[in-house]
Amino acid sequence: MMRTKAAVALEAGKPLEIMEVNLEGPKAGEVLIEIKATGICHTDEFTRSGADPEGLFPSILGHEGAGIVMEVGEGVTTLKPGDHVIPLYTPECRECHSCLSGKTNLCTAIRGTQGQGLMPDGTTRFSMLDGTPIYHYMGCSTFANHTVMPEIALAKVRDDAPFDKICYIGCGVTTGIGSVINTAGVEIGSTAAVFGLGGIGLNVIQGLRMAGADVIIGVDLNDDKAEMAKKFGMTHFVNPSKIDGSVTDAIVELTKTEQDAFGGVDYSFDATGNVQVMRDALECSHRGWGVSVIIGVAPAGAEISTRPFQLVTGRVWKGTAFGGAKGRTDVPKFVDWYMDGKIEIDSMITHKLSLEDINEGFELMHAGKSIRAVVEF
Amino acid sequence: MMRTKAAVALEAGKPLEIMEVNLEGPKAGEVLIEIKATGICHTDEFTRSGADPEGLFPSILGHEGAGIVMEVGEGVTTLKPGDHVIPLYTPECRECHSCLSGKTNLCTAIRGTQGQGLMPDGTTRFSMLDGTPIYHYMGCSTFANHTVMPEIALAKVRDDAPFDKICYIGCGVTTGIGSVINTAGVEIGSTAAVFGLGGIGLNVIQGLRMAGADVIIGVDLNDDKAEMAKKFGMTHFVNPSKIDGSVTDAIVELTKTEQDAFGGVDYSFDATGNVQVMRDALECSHRGWGVSVIIGVAPAGAEISTRPFQLVTGRVWKGTAFGGAKGRTDVPKFVDWYMDGKIEIDSMITHKLSLEDINEGFELMHAGKSIRAVVEF
Repeated sequence: MMRTKAAVALEAGKPLEIMEVNLEGPKAGEVLIEIKATGICHTDEFTRSGADPEGLFPSILGHEGAGIVMEVGEGVTTLKPGDHVIPLYTPECRECHSCLSGKTNLCTAIRGTQGQGLMPDGTTRFSMLDGTPIYHYMGCSTFANHTVMPEIALAKVRDDAPFDKICYIGCGVTTGIGSVINTAGVEIGSTAAVFGLGGIGLNVIQGLRMAGADVIIGVDLNDDKAEMAKKFGMTHFVNPSKIDGSVTDAIVELTKTEQDAFGGVDYSFDATGNVQVMRDALECSHRGWGVSVIIGVAPAGAEISTRPFQLVTGRVWKGTAFGGAKGRTDVPKFVDWYMDGKIEIDSMITHKLSLEDINEGFELMHAGKSIRAVVEF
Repeated sequence: MMRTKAAVALEAGKPLEIMEVNLEGPKAGEVLIEIKATGICHTDEFTRSGADPEGLFPSILGHEGAGIVMEVGEGVTTLKPGDHVIPLYTPECRECHSCLSGKTNLCTAIRGTQGQGLMPDGTTRFSMLDGTPIYHYMGCSTFANHTVMPEIALAKVRDDAPFDKICYIGCGVTTGIGSVINTAGVEIGSTAAVFGLGGIGLNVIQGLRMAGADVIIGVDLNDDKAEMAKKFGMTHFVNPSKIDGSVTDAIVELTKTEQDAFGGVDYSFDATGNVQVMRDALECSHRGWGVSVIIGVAPAGAEISTRPFQLVTGRVWKGTAFGGAKGRTDVPKFVDWYMDGKIEIDSMITHKLSLEDINEGFELMHAGKSIRAVVEF
């Protein structure tokens, strides 16, 4: 049992409280990590705010981190103290029915306990100084200076990569780029539309550029988002509040060519979480073969809808979680790509904070001032 | 100009009227066909009844036929008098942007005029004896002893195949089997559920058997449908009105195994046209990789809906038209498969009628007494 410093979500809707907490050492198959940096993601805010119907309190949020292995539990064979790691909210056990299917990244080995805020043995490692258990969050809890995680939920990465940048690969970067290369399977020369030009949207755009898309249309209600998006590869910008007619019609018109009187994009991506936008994204995709990918998390109970004719005439509606990436296999590759200059991250880390100032990170997010705020320990 | 006998839809909701009509000869790129047999499909009834908001009257319905080339217009090079053909409501020009994409069977060469009940030059070949134009239907109008069609909308098939059986390949057989092999891409050993055990559902089932599916679950409110479906390969039957709980839960339970605690089918198919059933079909498909295909035509204005979480956790929602088949390329192959005994058709042709009795065919369909009624000329 050790003590560590953490930002604790005591109650829904309240600011996080910085405090000392107890942390038990790693049990069999578990690993103690020193977290060096963590991003603050909309999903953390979804739970902090109380909007998440499955939110548990008290808990230590955070799921987009990077750190160093301090100690390994019994039976851990793939990691050793000193290894650099990125926590995975989507583990990769390589043994469950889902992993063995080869068709999905949604490992189901520890899904039950993870959803309940517990380690695989059904208990928590964190507790308040008075002994009250503190729930884990998405199996990660990176808003703590130290955390314990299952071995299967840690990607070993190279030692020379900076923690304050590669932590973003733990969620946003991989989700955005992965949705393009794993889920959509975009080919060279494609046309695409990206709805929502926040952190995820920018990463979708750079994924599209990596995949060789010819036309990359960004859609956002805020004109200020266009400049950054252009730097990441956006070729056209549509602000739905500043056009006559619907955004789907605008995109269809933009993509008509001499050869193609119909128009529509080959691939579209929703990075807003708004169910009406998800419908627009589907319906602006091309008759016959358009693929539309839902990335955003919708409010509890919200539903998507469309006329079935949209699908019968060849559109495909899909979704993605963690960009379809298999964490232990793909995340080290993403880190290499960052170090090789294939992936741009630095300019998206707009704010650095200490753990004490973590609530400021949520305020920056709400004010639309940050792309990504990162807490460094 | 010749005269031929046809069943004419004079007004929405009225029985068809058998009469002599005028038929102009084939113009450039067109072909005159003697129709030898035609199936009566639910889509014909959708339009006849007035439910189709795009229905045009007077028109000659019918789109599931087989016949012989009588005469070819100027510039027709791939067909000659005497050739046996199956009319294609989805043409295959092999030159438009859609055909050249290689990603869809939805040829767009003549889509505009076809949807308006006209030949590609914007006129009709049929007219009443008083000269009033009669609209074409789905570019086919097989409820006439003779019809004129574009060359690109005719599949040349072998001469020894019986018209009264292979006409069914012009729609139902290809739609059902094609949805499995082209749209879903079912692999050997898969699990699948088929909602609706009418003509399309039976053909989906035989497609699944051809594709080597291990588990083929049929779903229908009518127990009487189970016997025939078993003959076509169904391995399990669920009648939603006779179980406690939801049909999705029942299918998930049925497909759980020692290796797979989650359950759900790899592939599901809606062959009902009911939007609530389409949702059930999606939601009983497997987390991580389930693919659900909409085949049925929904009532005008009806919408499908689900929580986006269903897609974000890996399910894929698709649709199919003419089973994703490229008519001139795939239909001759389906005819070969029928002649080789790979595809069963005979037992699905439950009724044979003369053109004079065609309205009886619609009555049999409503009474649920026929799988397919075929009119022979």
